[in-house]
Amino acid sequence: MRIGFIGLGNMGGPMVRNLAEAGHEVVAFDIAAERLAALDGIANVQAASAINQTTAGAAIVITMLPASVHVESVYIDNDLLGSIDTSTLVIDCSTIAPATSRRVAAAARDRGIDMLDAPVSGGTGGAEAGTLTFMVGGSEASLERARPILEVMGSNIFHAGDAGAGQTAKICNNMLLAAQMTATAEALALGVAQGLDPAVLSSIMQSSSGGNWPLNVYNPWPGVMEGVPASRGYEGGFFVDLMIKDLELALAAANESGTPTAMGSLARNLYRTHQATNNAGGLDFSSIQRLIAPHAGE
Amino acid sequence: MRIGFIGLGNMGGPMVRNLAEAGHEVVAFDIAAERLAALDGIANVQAASAINQTTAGAAIVITMLPASVHVESVYIDNDLLGSIDTSTLVIDCSTIAPATSRRVAAAARDRGIDMLDAPVSGGTGGAEAGTLTFMVGGSEASLERARPILEVMGSNIFHAGDAGAGQTAKICNNMLLAAQMTATAEALALGVAQGLDPAVLSSIMQSSSGGNWPLNVYNPWPGVMEGVPASRGYEGGFFVDLMIKDLELALAAANESGTPTAMGSLARNLYRTHQATNNAGGLDFSSIQRLIAPHAGE
Amino acid sequence: MRIGFIGLGNMGGPMVRNLAEAGHEVVAFDIAAERLAALDGIANVQAASAINQTTAGAAIVITMLPASVHVESVYIDNDLLGSIDTSTLVIDCSTIAPATSRRVAAAARDRGIDMLDAPVSGGTGGAEAGTLTFMVGGSEASLERARPILEVMGSNIFHAGDAGAGQTAKICNNMLLAAQMTATAEALALGVAQGLDPAVLSSIMQSSSGGNWPLNVYNPWPGVMEGVPASRGYEGGFFVDLMIKDLELALAAANESGTPTAMGSLARNLYRTHQATNNAGGLDFSSIQRLIAPHAGE
Amino acid sequence: MRIGFIGLGNMGGPMVRNLAEAGHEVVAFDIAAERLAALDGIANVQAASAINQTTAGAAIVITMLPASVHVESVYIDNDLLGSIDTSTLVIDCSTIAPATSRRVAAAARDRGIDMLDAPVSGGTGGAEAGTLTFMVGGSEASLERARPILEVMGSNIFHAGDAGAGQTAKICNNMLLAAQMTATAEALALGVAQGLDPAVLSSIMQSSSGGNWPLNVYNPWPGVMEGVPASRGYEGGFFVDLMIKDLELALAAANESGTPTAMGSLARNLYRTHQATNNAGGLDFSSIQRLIAPHAGE
Repeated sequence: MRIGFIGLGNMGGPMVRNLAEAGHEVVAFDIAAERLAALDGIANVQAASAINQTTAGAAIVITMLPASVHVESVYIDNDLLGSIDTSTLVIDCSTIAPATSRRVAAAARDRGIDMLDAPVSGGTGGAEAGTLTFMVGGSEASLERARPILEVMGSNIFHAGDAGAGQTAKICNNMLLAAQMTATAEALALGVAQGLDPAVLSSIMQSSSGGNWPLNVYNPWPGVMEGVPASRGYEGGFFVDLMIKDLELALAAANESGTPTAMGSLARNLYRTHQATNNAGGLDFSSIQRLIAPHAGE
Repeated sequence: MRIGFIGLGNMGGPMVRNLAEAGHEVVAFDIAAERLAALDGIANVQAASAINQTTAGAAIVITMLPASVHVESVYIDNDLLGSIDTSTLVIDCSTIAPATSRRVAAAARDRGIDMLDAPVSGGTGGAEAGTLTFMVGGSEASLERARPILEVMGSNIFHAGDAGAGQTAKICNNMLLAAQMTATAEALALGVAQGLDPAVLSSIMQSSSGGNWPLNVYNPWPGVMEGVPASRGYEGGFFVDLMIKDLELALAAANESGTPTAMGSLARNLYRTHQATNNAGGLDFSSIQRLIAPHAGE
Repeated sequence: MRIGFIGLGNMGGPMVRNLAEAGHEVVAFDIAAERLAALDGIANVQAASAINQTTAGAAIVITMLPASVHVESVYIDNDLLGSIDTSTLVIDCSTIAPATSRRVAAAARDRGIDMLDAPVSGGTGGAEAGTLTFMVGGSEASLERARPILEVMGSNIFHAGDAGAGQTAKICNNMLLAAQMTATAEALALGVAQGLDPAVLSSIMQSSSGGNWPLNVYNPWPGVMEGVPASRGYEGGFFVDLMIKDLELALAAANESGTPTAMGSLARNLYRTHQATNNAGGLDFSSIQRLIAPHAGE
Repeated sequence: MRIGFIGLGNMGGPMVRNLAEAGHEVVAFDIAAERLAALDGIANVQAASAINQTTAGAAIVITMLPASVHVESVYIDNDLLGSIDTSTLVIDCSTIAPATSRRVAAAARDRGIDMLDAPVSGGTGGAEAGTLTFMVGGSEASLERARPILEVMGSNIFHAGDAGAGQTAKICNNMLLAAQMTATAEALALGVAQGLDPAVLSSIMQSSSGGNWPLNVYNPWPGVMEGVPASRGYEGGFFVDLMIKDLELALAAANESGTPTAMGSLARNLYRTHQATNNAGGLDFSSIQRLIAPHAGE
């Protein structure tokens, strides 16, 4: 299948490799020439010299861009939609504002083009391994058209609802994640300060009503769990900078819909404080433990 | 085995019944005569006419009292310890301040008496069914002595550490629970306000990094899950009043040890606002959903 | 002087009256015909039948619009700037995002047009009495050109800095105001719950380091101060809905610049909860006292 | 007049000097011998070799102790009250829990002794200069007896209400102060991040509804105001450690009375984070600016 792919960053690059490896013919584009060059010599991958070359004859066009402004700019301001055939399925994998996804999807629909928002979780590791999770907004039928391609890049595919719903599901999930990671870090800090062993306390809470994803697979206290960022100085994983981006998308949506989000807002503010005070933007988001217990694990 | 049991409220009452049903001889006491009277005619249960009668010849003395002040008053001010033989094992199942547990346990130790703090979770349902969870502080050896009796009343027994550690584990767990219940309620409110189906969003987050105990078994959005308080007007379950009690114990411990607990404190304040504004003290704690989305489920 | 004035709502209407009364010739426009009609028969006021009529021959063009989107739409999308002469001074009195003010001012500058952002405080009362406060962004020279006209409508004029600085000053001030109003309401609630007289406590804090504008002139506890919204059921004053609008502008700017604003965010969330739970959008913002102490003053 | 004075720390020491300088005969005591020794050779000051020597023949007994536990221990556990004549007036200037003040005052009343709680603000500077503020709880008549002595040590004397009301007034005031200092620091950080001059923004907010005590006399942004801690590296002033102590007293009282204090709690948590992360316990409390804007003033 011929696939146009725009946006070859840390996520888009490995996604293209997986598509090509699965035998699809990928026409790729990025405004950064070195990213395009990095795909040189990979079988089934062809570098486009202009963004519009990605769409010609493509069964599917995929974008993986940094923010709302880029998605709107590419599809609408630069009228990529104008170069896309109505037989092409468009999948935007960027994490952006639900409102922007809805606007771009509506513009696509006006031209008779099917479009999905399909933001991912799983990080660069998931992109490389082809085990991403996709949260998809758009019609059931479009999702079924996309499924074989999404399955090349990921292992979990959720249909969240109509256009924009993929974005909403992702930012709701990540807002909850940020809050429960921070609350987990607080509970561990309090327990340790009162004399408990962090591994014992983690194990008790994991089996009790405090149980959550961080305690199951991503414990923030250094040394409690092997192979997680907390046990390697919070290197790798999901960056604080990116968690903040998702939190701010969630809070912008909350402003738009008038939803109280006191816990989500607090998480954003603690992460911003952590980012600035501990120069933590490039650390894994479980490093919020350090803001709460600066000497955790020492 | 002869067991002294003090405190026959909503929790203590059914705990006594289970002990008696298992064949133990229970000498029970409560300052409220009607609670004592409620045990009339139950085989193996004998009402004590004074608190000190519970301890004579008892292999185990159990207390289940409302707050720190009662535990300290019973054991120390009224010198119950003075009437307890050194061969007796003392188990305090009340949820109280870790510092109080440590103080009372130290007073017991000074008299050569073994004591455990063993607060429970599982609510009145768990007390009746004998499926409580015990979080135990004290020596390993004392816990092994207590285990056969605890197993009559509960199904999960965790050893949290030394004296007071059971209390600490419980309040850490419940602080985390309050925060993640509230954050879950926010994520659901945001998703629904942006057009998502709460059941679809719940299912996506449950399988993703937002996964937690509330999403697994205690969803706060009315109608998403059958048989939970949210689907019966938040009746029954674990009362807001009791969650606030536990949060305030946790925050007092956090003050004592200088631990930042911004999420836990915020949860306490939202629960206090919910309690006062929505007259919600006697509703299940998942009703915090109503503070965040007053028309949830309508 | 000939003045074009666009936006004749609760604020714009009385501002036009004051300008006309001071002898200026005002050409007014609003998309709502009834608002235009409401100015019928006022000396010196002429209704424009199209928005572009307001600019012809005007020495000054003033806009007073609800939100960023309207300002951007009027000046740029509908190209009002294209109909404005370079000799005209443009003053936007709307409260909008600083980033939008900067963008519109830059578009004006590109066409050789001087523009100021000059959001106001003082409410409809201040608009009617001509005692508004203006917080002005733009060049010193432009402000001096505007000053005689601003002085007709207001009594305090602050120069905050370059384009957008007026907006920034206003949203910073209102974010601080929301936080200190809420904190004042908490301090009063705590004092009263501990047995103090709210008037006595107010007077002590006012003379101490807790002193602030709310305690000086806008006490939120019913009955402490005469003539304030708190003493008339929180009617009139500055609506909760509008405070929320300003808070959300502030928080959007904070996201943009990465500033931690935990107190401001919390104030926003408490106001959103108050708005939804107490149906308080149309009450004065000091009614946050009711969220914190539902029976305050009873 | 003969005055017994117990507690000769940074506050008590200079208070004794002022009393002695005003001609009163002070019998002073502290458990730390070096503090007693530091008063050697001061006219009118006599060192007591035991705490009970301070009360014999004293018209007034004053205590200035670190925390609730010390006040309760001195007056009740060590029965200082038992050595005090009913003609003596007792004034406790410590900042402690209102509930403790009420309990100790009740114990005094039971013995026929008049007692006031009279915590101070104004810091060591105010203690030295004799310009402290006293917030007094107790009867009007007792306050009138105390007034001449309080006026030697302070310049503002507020009658807050009955026993414990002085404590309540102080902790309410300081909770509000912590919240508005933090909110002021946020507003300044946001304004500066958006390009404003901190002095210009401070001056605008000071004259507007954002006006408060910090903006008037204690601006937290380095360089805006001369002679304040912010302009000397946050040295001196009112320590973060002490602000946290007062916040925790306030929050304990809020727990006791069920008052929602979301802003006060958040301030406590930000101060605790600041204390731990920036090693800021010994800095002035306006240094919270650094947690919010680490490079403020650079």
